[in-house]
Amino acid sequence: MASASGKHDTGLDLELSRIVKVPREVIWKAWTEPEHIVKWFTPAPWKTVSCEVDLRPGGIFRAMMRSPEGKDTNEPAGCYLEIVRPERLVWTTVLGPGYRPVANPFLAFTAILTFDEVRSGTRYTARVLHKDAADRQRHAEMGFDSGWGKALDQLVAIAGEIQ
Amino acid sequence: MASASGKHDTGLDLELSRIVKVPREVIWKAWTEPEHIVKWFTPAPWKTVSCEVDLRPGGIFRAMMRSPEGKDTNEPAGCYLEIVRPERLVWTTVLGPGYRPVANPFLAFTAILTFDEVRSGTRYTARVLHKDAADRQRHAEMGFDSGWGKALDQLVAIAGEIQ
Repeated sequence: MASASGKHDTGLDLELSRIVKVPREVIWKAWTEPEHIVKWFTPAPWKTVSCEVDLRPGGIFRAMMRSPEGKDTNEPAGCYLEIVRPERLVWTTVLGPGYRPVANPFLAFTAILTFDEVRSGTRYTARVLHKDAADRQRHAEMGFDSGWGKALDQLVAIAGEIQ
Repeated sequence: MASASGKHDTGLDLELSRIVKVPREVIWKAWTEPEHIVKWFTPAPWKTVSCEVDLRPGGIFRAMMRSPEGKDTNEPAGCYLEIVRPERLVWTTVLGPGYRPVANPFLAFTAILTFDEVRSGTRYTARVLHKDAADRQRHAEMGFDSGWGKALDQLVAIAGEIQ
């Protein structure tokens, strides 16, 4: 399926890009199978307590998180936009299942994940698109770099368990 | 491509469904080629003055409209989500090109167009999904039924010109 490239906009986007020693098929499974997602998706000491995945365009993607104090978040469900196994996965928080617009997303963004094969493993790139500079700034201040980075560390740490 | 079905929600959706004596390939062209879109998309006496189409998931869809008084609208660009020629077309106003969330859509909705072959022509169905009942009500009061209906009349009227 053709996919819109979309330019990187440094004033609106946030990006984490790193080479990891994990085959991209394993990263794909880590990102798309709930039994794996719950193990790495949320940076400790937060936890992912449950996860819904309907892996098709318009299908639900939701990860429920729990704070260290035991409080569960209650974010609206997001949805998948593009699924190109094992190289590209796109989902957004502004549409829910069946592409219905979301009333009050906690943070409005679209995540574009790309997994490129390189000699030593996979170039993992998470690009997150915001609607304006204020939302980008808010996401940065919420700890995008450390949060998405720590989650990736957790993914790498459990990669050996994924068949 | 598999597509999420999504149930019709009468409290959140608006729908226009009608059988028209136009082959669905012609309807598809009317909906996806700017030279045709400008002729029917906006109910008279409003006009469509220009149109941008990048017919792929994440590609731009924007129709610029002009009021009878000569005032141009300036709505943010929307984007396509699913393109299944000649039977299904999905686009939204809450994402722009490249899937970037839109800052201030004039009205937040996703349009799901389906064109089904029937004996006398095509079953044309436009289902429009809103985030909440208030938006649905606002769209209804803006004249959804008459507006989308009149636009369809205009499409049927120019169908003979489409090769």
